[in-house]
Amino acid sequence: MFPFKDGNFAPRNRWYVAAWSDEVSQDPIERWILDECVALYRKQDGAPVALDGLCPHHAFPLGKSKVKGDDIVCGFHGLRFGPDGAAQSAPFVDKVPSACRIKSYPVKEMWKWIWIWPGDPALADESLIPDHHAIGLTDPSMHAPRGLWMELEARYQLLHDNLLDLQHLEVLHEGLLGEEGFGKAEETRTSGPDWVNSHRTMKSVNLPGSFAKMFGARKVDRTITMRWHVPGLHVGPDTFTVPDGHDDAGAVVMKLIAFHAVTPARETSCHYFSTFARSFELGNEELDKMMLASWAGVAAQDKFASEEIEAKIRAKGGKVPEMLFKSDAHLVAGRRLIEQMMDEERKQGA
Amino acid sequence: MFPFKDGNFAPRNRWYVAAWSDEVSQDPIERWILDECVALYRKQDGAPVALDGLCPHHAFPLGKSKVKGDDIVCGFHGLRFGPDGAAQSAPFVDKVPSACRIKSYPVKEMWKWIWIWPGDPALADESLIPDHHAIGLTDPSMHAPRGLWMELEARYQLLHDNLLDLQHLEVLHEGLLGEEGFGKAEETRTSGPDWVNSHRTMKSVNLPGSFAKMFGARKVDRTITMRWHVPGLHVGPDTFTVPDGHDDAGAVVMKLIAFHAVTPARETSCHYFSTFARSFELGNEELDKMMLASWAGVAAQDKFASEEIEAKIRAKGGKVPEMLFKSDAHLVAGRRLIEQMMDEERKQGA
Amino acid sequence: MFPFKDGNFAPRNRWYVAAWSDEVSQDPIERWILDECVALYRKQDGAPVALDGLCPHHAFPLGKSKVKGDDIVCGFHGLRFGPDGAAQSAPFVDKVPSACRIKSYPVKEMWKWIWIWPGDPALADESLIPDHHAIGLTDPSMHAPRGLWMELEARYQLLHDNLLDLQHLEVLHEGLLGEEGFGKAEETRTSGPDWVNSHRTMKSVNLPGSFAKMFGARKVDRTITMRWHVPGLHVGPDTFTVPDGHDDAGAVVMKLIAFHAVTPARETSCHYFSTFARSFELGNEELDKMMLASWAGVAAQDKFASEEIEAKIRAKGGKVPEMLFKSDAHLVAGRRLIEQMMDEERKQGA
Repeated sequence: MFPFKDGNFAPRNRWYVAAWSDEVSQDPIERWILDECVALYRKQDGAPVALDGLCPHHAFPLGKSKVKGDDIVCGFHGLRFGPDGAAQSAPFVDKVPSACRIKSYPVKEMWKWIWIWPGDPALADESLIPDHHAIGLTDPSMHAPRGLWMELEARYQLLHDNLLDLQHLEVLHEGLLGEEGFGKAEETRTSGPDWVNSHRTMKSVNLPGSFAKMFGARKVDRTITMRWHVPGLHVGPDTFTVPDGHDDAGAVVMKLIAFHAVTPARETSCHYFSTFARSFELGNEELDKMMLASWAGVAAQDKFASEEIEAKIRAKGGKVPEMLFKSDAHLVAGRRLIEQMMDEERKQGA
Repeated sequence: MFPFKDGNFAPRNRWYVAAWSDEVSQDPIERWILDECVALYRKQDGAPVALDGLCPHHAFPLGKSKVKGDDIVCGFHGLRFGPDGAAQSAPFVDKVPSACRIKSYPVKEMWKWIWIWPGDPALADESLIPDHHAIGLTDPSMHAPRGLWMELEARYQLLHDNLLDLQHLEVLHEGLLGEEGFGKAEETRTSGPDWVNSHRTMKSVNLPGSFAKMFGARKVDRTITMRWHVPGLHVGPDTFTVPDGHDDAGAVVMKLIAFHAVTPARETSCHYFSTFARSFELGNEELDKMMLASWAGVAAQDKFASEEIEAKIRAKGGKVPEMLFKSDAHLVAGRRLIEQMMDEERKQGA
Repeated sequence: MFPFKDGNFAPRNRWYVAAWSDEVSQDPIERWILDECVALYRKQDGAPVALDGLCPHHAFPLGKSKVKGDDIVCGFHGLRFGPDGAAQSAPFVDKVPSACRIKSYPVKEMWKWIWIWPGDPALADESLIPDHHAIGLTDPSMHAPRGLWMELEARYQLLHDNLLDLQHLEVLHEGLLGEEGFGKAEETRTSGPDWVNSHRTMKSVNLPGSFAKMFGARKVDRTITMRWHVPGLHVGPDTFTVPDGHDDAGAVVMKLIAFHAVTPARETSCHYFSTFARSFELGNEELDKMMLASWAGVAAQDKFASEEIEAKIRAKGGKVPEMLFKSDAHLVAGRRLIEQMMDEERKQGA
């Protein structure tokens, strides 16, 4: 489906963020992930569990059922499943046949996120999850608060497209994250087998509006990078330093890292988990709240843009024409990586 | 359509409950029945009338038009139809041609229900309506109040499936209608050409929660039967007697009969008319209110289950896999009867 | 699509009302017209502009973007278009290629309406817009206030069908615009290459209810005409004179002209712009308000009828049967004109 080949939707043998840690408890929740209905809950020891969300008996939602001990018990007729997906018992039968089993998804809780592997469990390799220390989430010199979750009525790639073209900071987020002239800064683009990276340096520009409002207006040199760890996570270090002509030229004013996890929900919807890490006032919870409120305002603009475009795609029968510029090279490279992953999975499946 | 063969929807040459008596008056109402839009109203003598709900002129809804005398007058240009469906007159023409005629459905008012026959009027046989005295609705030793009407966003068979497996009393209606151990009671299943019957007897169990709350907790022997008069009505006598070891062992504590009428509305929606009869305090209207409130709470759980499953069927492209157990034998038998009725109708039509 | 041949939707090389003048400003709006998403705004000199509503870069809505000077600037990445549709600049590229251009629609502001030509701009001929003086909108002996805009969830032809059969005044608008006996009045029907006209004269009838309420009940002779300037506008002079048997027999009691502009929005929705002109109390703004409130009540009935029928068309899989009477001759003639226009456009395109 647009913008991919017909029949291609999303790479499955990859890790995606399924939930914020505090969303998952002994009260199960239902969440659509890569067009599958998943039930998420925790065992008594706190370990997260992700099971097929539909009871195989009559398709009652397990994510709207109850957890007993380490098991989930279907709320309709009482079929009970262990965390491995094997049926344990049912009130209406002496022994449940061993064939009665549902899919159990590999999950991995790291930092404040629960990652899920929607594809073949045998291939789930935890080392494929981006290194949380290296990207700054658990770096002790930084502080990253629990961020936002939004469900967007837009196919996931539209949110990636958004994140792959930082030009939109200057326009969609005008006055908040980008300043005039942002688009004129040279962008360096690099890519690897499962990542694409963009990088811009700007000399003596205004501190962006949302930060200026909190920390005061000033001129800074700015270095912004955005690396997409395909397919699930974008990491964007954004460093502001003192410009030339000052005694402390080059000193770091502030360093922020943006984190945007995107997970396909249904075919035309996606989950958006987003937060940031900062290099200053690490223990200031009031500042967390203030910055997260500003962050949510920016995310709402991205939601608006993605959902508007999704609505137009639907109105136009499934696709819209696109006129691509040189500045879209990064977006094109990213889409190509996703397409390759899907093609490879299909080949392996064949 | 699921769970039936493609092309099969519902048996038409059968009686279904169309409305509660007090829903129908000289102000017409529109109701979808077996995917047909029907206008329901009463003549001046009180007799109910069911006509095609679409004016044949330009498809304006007759159920949102006006009744004059015994006729219904289209609210758009004034075409007027008698209770037999024949056009009487129109303000824009001197004489309406006799070909201008709409379908008039056989209807029969019994007790507080108006039954409708959606199929061939020539085949409408009132003796096919379940005997209201025999099933307890008009038995003078019982009292049955005007019950509830709900429209469920679920294909009708999901509600039948629900009613055909009483095991759900213990789980979906936990603490209200079923007690732990319900599922372990032996179920006796019998069936005939247009009925299926299940029967369970339990010794010395708790009076179910919703009754215990009103009448006090106690141990009882319980005998529960559910007979589906295919396709329109389920009748479920539920008798509680004093258990062994008491002087009055075997004496009836209370007898209830559940009545559940299910009528297909559109392809993926249905009407649910439900009430009960009780053997005690026949004239107590306050008790009616209290018991009906409890009844509505239980019905809301059934609505939830049916609509959740319907939503999953839609999400999964029209059907969901089902793993059937021995306890589903009754449900399978019921579905088979419905399927046979549809197959026969198709054969007769051919 | 119903009631036209498959593949036929609406004539494109024609003028339609796009908006009330005061709806369009330097803040752009988005409006669907003939299934195209259009952005409407004004230049600095006040001239209205209509451009393709989707940015060709990534389909962000230009109607939800910003106007700068005479140009519209995409709210996503900043691509900027002039009123002629040519891309002017973008922050992410030094020079936008000349191929980057979007459709600019011919528009013409007359009286309080902005007309649009959705088809081939080369064919846009302003003389095809109905003469606003001749039809009474700008006749200085009449007064026409800014009327209503409604979006109907109904295919546009249903609203034309409504307007083409004045019989509905007596029934749908019973007590407001038509009196009993209206249907018995002889209707004279004439038509030309792009118009159909109906005409009725009634002797000594009651002043219709909505007028009687404002101006007092009385007997009048009534002459009502409705001319459809196909496809966009219906004009309906409605003149009430003193009936025979009075000294001033034949004197005009009041003259009203109804104006109904209908513009296809999406395939199953349309815009309805409606107002009236009156021959009396030309400067009375309080009377405008009172009459417009009454007018909106009548329009709400037409909206109800059209949307009910649209809902039934959808429920019935795309079309409903119609039994046409002699009184539908006018409606049939009107539909035929529309169909001919579409057939001709297709032929020209081939």
